Amino acid sequence: MTTDTAWDAFREWWATISDLSGVGSLLGWDRETDMPPGGAEGRASQMGTLAAIRHRELTRPDVEEPIALLAEADLDPRRAAAVRQAGRDRRRALCVPEDLVRAVSEAGSRCVTAWIDARPRADFDAVAPLLERVVELKRRQAEALLPEGGEEPYDALLEGFEPGARASALEPLFARLTERLTPLVARASSDGPGIGGRTWPRDAQMTLADRIARRVGFDLEHGAIAESAHPFTVTPGPGDVRFTTRLFDDDPLPGALAAMHELGHALYEQGFDPELARGPLAEAPSLGAHESQSRFWENHVGRTDAFWRLMAPTLAELFPEATAGLEPEAPAAAARVVRPSLIRVEADEVTYNLHIALRARLELALIRGDLAVADLPGAWDEGMEELLGLRPPDPRDGVMQDIHWHDGLIGYFPTYTLGNLYAAQLAEAIEAELGPLPALIEEDRLGEVLGWLREHVHRHGAEFSAADLMRRATGRDLDEDALIAHLEATYVG
Amino acid sequence: MTTDTAWDAFREWWATISDLSGVGSLLGWDRETDMPPGGAEGRASQMGTLAAIRHRELTRPDVEEPIALLAEADLDPRRAAAVRQAGRDRRRALCVPEDLVRAVSEAGSRCVTAWIDARPRADFDAVAPLLERVVELKRRQAEALLPEGGEEPYDALLEGFEPGARASALEPLFARLTERLTPLVARASSDGPGIGGRTWPRDAQMTLADRIARRVGFDLEHGAIAESAHPFTVTPGPGDVRFTTRLFDDDPLPGALAAMHELGHALYEQGFDPELARGPLAEAPSLGAHESQSRFWENHVGRTDAFWRLMAPTLAELFPEATAGLEPEAPAAAARVVRPSLIRVEADEVTYNLHIALRARLELALIRGDLAVADLPGAWDEGMEELLGLRPPDPRDGVMQDIHWHDGLIGYFPTYTLGNLYAAQLAEAIEAELGPLPALIEEDRLGEVLGWLREHVHRHGAEFSAADLMRRATGRDLDEDALIAHLEATYVG
Repeated sequence: MTTDTAWDAFREWWATISDLSGVGSLLGWDRETDMPPGGAEGRASQMGTLAAIRHRELTRPDVEEPIALLAEADLDPRRAAAVRQAGRDRRRALCVPEDLVRAVSEAGSRCVTAWIDARPRADFDAVAPLLERVVELKRRQAEALLPEGGEEPYDALLEGFEPGARASALEPLFARLTERLTPLVARASSDGPGIGGRTWPRDAQMTLADRIARRVGFDLEHGAIAESAHPFTVTPGPGDVRFTTRLFDDDPLPGALAAMHELGHALYEQGFDPELARGPLAEAPSLGAHESQSRFWENHVGRTDAFWRLMAPTLAELFPEATAGLEPEAPAAAARVVRPSLIRVEADEVTYNLHIALRARLELALIRGDLAVADLPGAWDEGMEELLGLRPPDPRDGVMQDIHWHDGLIGYFPTYTLGNLYAAQLAEAIEAELGPLPALIEEDRLGEVLGWLREHVHRHGAEFSAADLMRRATGRDLDEDALIAHLEATYVG
Repeated sequence: MTTDTAWDAFREWWATISDLSGVGSLLGWDRETDMPPGGAEGRASQMGTLAAIRHRELTRPDVEEPIALLAEADLDPRRAAAVRQAGRDRRRALCVPEDLVRAVSEAGSRCVTAWIDARPRADFDAVAPLLERVVELKRRQAEALLPEGGEEPYDALLEGFEPGARASALEPLFARLTERLTPLVARASSDGPGIGGRTWPRDAQMTLADRIARRVGFDLEHGAIAESAHPFTVTPGPGDVRFTTRLFDDDPLPGALAAMHELGHALYEQGFDPELARGPLAEAPSLGAHESQSRFWENHVGRTDAFWRLMAPTLAELFPEATAGLEPEAPAAAARVVRPSLIRVEADEVTYNLHIALRARLELALIRGDLAVADLPGAWDEGMEELLGLRPPDPRDGVMQDIHWHDGLIGYFPTYTLGNLYAAQLAEAIEAELGPLPALIEEDRLGEVLGWLREHVHRHGAEFSAADLMRRATGRDLDEDALIAHLEATYVG
């Protein structure tokens, strides 16, 4: 076998895996958009079957030889990175038996279905046994994966979302962040004019999301936007990136900010170098890196006065009645109200990371075996009281608010805060090179901002680790300084 | 291996195949509804990958033993039928070498791409070499499959769509039908009032489709309706059946009739006995049987005065302007205008089967080697002149009008006429048991009609062959008498 033959076999192998990943994404997109409720059980089976087939493909014995040969060969850096990345995914897959993969997927689907049913009734007991099963299976998965990454089982789960991250580094990071955020929350302004109480037609809100997306540079020949109960972004295939937003009749802000957030994810997916398509590098190096893009557009652009001044003519056109007598900056001011609250996805930019600190602490305890699922609601409520000074009236607005754990996504929450940290560091780097962001936004130079991100972040895909990518882009290692500086400048006079 | 173990292995094997089929359907649904144009190329790869994986699963060597054991075992009739059906699909897959499967699929894709490009230019010569390749490969496929079904190669293709059908029976059937239809066309009324020239908002047309579907008994907890350029029905999974319709601003009739047609397919898919789910019998025994349901609801219900009287209040509510001064029966009268025309999908109920007779004759000659692709346009135009008295001005509205042959679908067209024949026989059987259809419709007893079809047709899935199923339901063998009687009663005063 020559290096060329090995490379061809490698490419073909990963193209199939890439196809299966795209199909898996589409199953998720459809579940949230077009699928009727009665399709849920069958969809869970399909997702399990597809996960099992992808796993089988990933662990095919006959690719061992080309991978070994390519690992020793003198490849250009990108090909070498692709072989490393695919090899890592393959070794992780080989660690976990196929029946455990299928069991995790099916347990997650079942638990999510039960959660959807039980949450409106605040019935944690109906979900608990299914969540217990999920946690138990994830712990087994973590133990199976441990040799490939990390110092303790939780690290092995983290590795699936944020390669290279370790609980031993995250725990002190969250401690410092919590310590610096708490006084900031107290000093931030907690009042704003608000823009509710008017009617913002949903059709026009969808048009607004579309206009914002086009203005920033989203390519709708290769993308789509839809409405769903929970906003998300998927890439069902090469040349096909989609995101959703959610809408409320009485307030355009949640929809616009969710659109900005998902748009950030979607722009990243559209920005990979086309030569990476259907290969192992056609993805972000980590979820934290991915989240840096959504948080950048949502927080460093979407919550600024400059952005809403830029969009003011569009708003006036789409919502002539609701915008009558409204200051152009009113949505931005409303988006910057800081007030401790129960729900993560409704939290302001300052308190948000305290919500994550709580989740990181609890999921670590679950996997370490220091906390039982039965004790989760109590631990949640205590943590909320400690970090945010609030106690949920019932589990619906407490431990049952997020889908993640029910779906088996443990080790995922910390990546949201990593995204906030990276976004703040990127914003500093952009300002150092292009000038102050408010001016760039108000002068409609968002294309230049996107260009900078394309060049320094997007196009590389997963060629570098998240830590290396961000170090190259910002010249700095990860810490909380940039985020705290941004929050202090924005929220404390 | 015990019979029980063998049955479990068999069930599990087919559940995976069923999951893959559902996912394949979803890829098609999404392509026609949500997918952005840039996703087309990636989607084609995904569909190819999924088809290859399904083929590999279908021909897995390790299921040979349980199938052989179950074939000899004393099973209840349903299980025995499931084993026969799955075994047949598996043997058909094993008959054709994988490189021929891939060659057929690729030749079809290339020919369709060329056809999409050449049709607007009416450039048959650009397509001819690619179509020749398709026909040649289909003939090779037919020869490979012949031992499994039929007396001549064409039968082996037919077997893929209409198991048990034979050219030796279809040829005389089409000859008799043509002979009896020709005078009927001449005697049928060719004028009607028409309902065009008004504006029928598309949103309201979608609501009409939804109202019709609910009224007839379509379960939207387990189904969905959307708009697409070409109407179709899919079953992306158990408990999830979807159909589309297409809309024109100036005429609600094509959309409503397409919705009735697809609704018929969708009701069939929703009507399989739930215990058949994810097994080999959770499908119709043939495309002709499937088409009998779409044709029944489209033609025997959707084109009647009674149906449009029933729907008149809904129409008045949804289209207050367009229905002003319109007789309730006007849409039905417009739907019953008989006029020979060039395009199959726009043909009326009487001339429709003459379009099919032409296609059946030509595709049979192609596979038998009695007709070369180069001579196809001439043969088409002569046939149109003979059967419908019209000559296409160019191939765009002649031999190039349908996608089927270009896509390798040879042996498919006859199932449309089989559907019309079965539908007429079913309508007679329903009237014999429940009373005249016009009264059942106008008295809003469509639920009873659906109930009859559920009981006699839907619930059985593929337990019986199409011929047996229809014999059990109607007490008669297939012939053209019921269809001719229905057309004479409806179209000749």
